[in-house]
Amino acid sequence: MAEQQKATNITWHHPIITKEDRWRLNGHKGAVVWFTGLSGSGKSTLAHAVEAALFERNVRTYVLDGDNIRHGLNKDLGFSPEDRQENIRRIGEVAKLFAEAGFITMTAFISPYKADRNLARSLNPPGTFIEVYCKCPLATCEQRDPKGLYKKARAGQIKEFTGIDAPYEPPENPELVLDTSKENVEACVRKVIACLESRGLLSPA
Amino acid sequence: MAEQQKATNITWHHPIITKEDRWRLNGHKGAVVWFTGLSGSGKSTLAHAVEAALFERNVRTYVLDGDNIRHGLNKDLGFSPEDRQENIRRIGEVAKLFAEAGFITMTAFISPYKADRNLARSLNPPGTFIEVYCKCPLATCEQRDPKGLYKKARAGQIKEFTGIDAPYEPPENPELVLDTSKENVEACVRKVIACLESRGLLSPA
Repeated sequence: MAEQQKATNITWHHPIITKEDRWRLNGHKGAVVWFTGLSGSGKSTLAHAVEAALFERNVRTYVLDGDNIRHGLNKDLGFSPEDRQENIRRIGEVAKLFAEAGFITMTAFISPYKADRNLARSLNPPGTFIEVYCKCPLATCEQRDPKGLYKKARAGQIKEFTGIDAPYEPPENPELVLDTSKENVEACVRKVIACLESRGLLSPA
Repeated sequence: MAEQQKATNITWHHPIITKEDRWRLNGHKGAVVWFTGLSGSGKSTLAHAVEAALFERNVRTYVLDGDNIRHGLNKDLGFSPEDRQENIRRIGEVAKLFAEAGFITMTAFISPYKADRNLARSLNPPGTFIEVYCKCPLATCEQRDPKGLYKKARAGQIKEFTGIDAPYEPPENPELVLDTSKENVEACVRKVIACLESRGLLSPA
C-alpha cells in the first residue's frame, strides 16, 4: 500500500482531523470537568445533572464515574494507595482522550490527592481543565451515606476510607467550589454551566 | 443534597442520557471498528482515512492508535505477553466507552491474539463491533517497513516482534477482510464505509 497510499493521499486529501475541526462540527470545545470531593458530596449526581443540561443544548458530553470505570477499565485495581493513584492516572488519560475527541467530559471520583489531580490537569491544554470542588462537611456526607459506605468504614469493614482513615486533600485553586450542603443541584448545575460559558468552552472559537 | 436532590429531580427531570439519545443527536449509532493485522499492513493509515471520510459526513469519530495510547494510558506497559494482553484489554475498554458515548471509534493495533480481540468484542452490544482484518503478506509488510521495525527485528534488536518471532492469529470470522497488498486506500475506505452502512450503523435507528 505504501506507494499507492502516497498517490491516494494526493487524490483524497484526507487530512488528520484536528481538534479545531471537531470543535467546529460540535459547536463547542472539548474539555475536562473534574469533580472532586468526599464520598456523598454529590459529584456523580452533579456530573449527570450537568450532562443532562448540556445535552439539551446539543453539547457532546460524557460522564466517567465508578459505574463505567471500576467495573471495566480499572477492574484490576483495588484501593491501596498505589492502586488509587493508578486509578486516577488512567481516568485522567481517558478524560484527556475524550476531550481531544471534542467532548465536554466529566469525571466523578473522590480523587483525594492533589498530585494526582494535578497530573490529570497537566495532560490538557491550559483553560480546558475545570476542577470543581464539591465542598461538603464530612458530617453531612456521612449523614447522607447514599451507598452505606461510611457506616461500613466506621464499623471497620472498609479500610482506608477517605475522610475516615484516609486523607482528602482539598484543591487550593479549583476553578469552581460548590457548597453542596447549602446549594441544591439546580443552583450547582447553573454555576458549572456559567463557568464553562465564561471560559468560552461552550462555543467553538 | 440528598433530599434536595429528589425534589430537584422532579423539577428538572434530568434523566440519564441513554445511548439512543446520543444516536439521535449524532444521526448515527456508536460502534467499534477494530482494525487488526501485521505491522505495516495499513491499519493506522486506513483508520485515519476512514475517520476523514466519516468526518465529512458529520459522523463523530475518533481513532485510538499507538500515538495516543502507548504514550499515555498504556505508557506503563511493555511488550511481554502479559503486557500485550493488558494493552489490548484497556484499549477494548476505552473503545467501548467511546462507542457508548456515541462515537464510531476506530482502533489500530496489531492485536495478534484472537482471545484478546474476542474479549474486546464481548464488551459491546451485538452488531456494534466490526473487526476489520488488514490482510497483507508478511513479505509485503516487511518491504514497506514504514517504521524500520522489521529491520530491527531481523537484526535481533527487537524481540517478540509479531510475524518474526511472535505469532499473529488471523481472525476466523471478521466482519471485513481488506487485502491491502492489492487494494488501495480509496477502495478499502469505501469497503469499510459500505460495511458500516449495510449494518445500519450510520443511521440513528
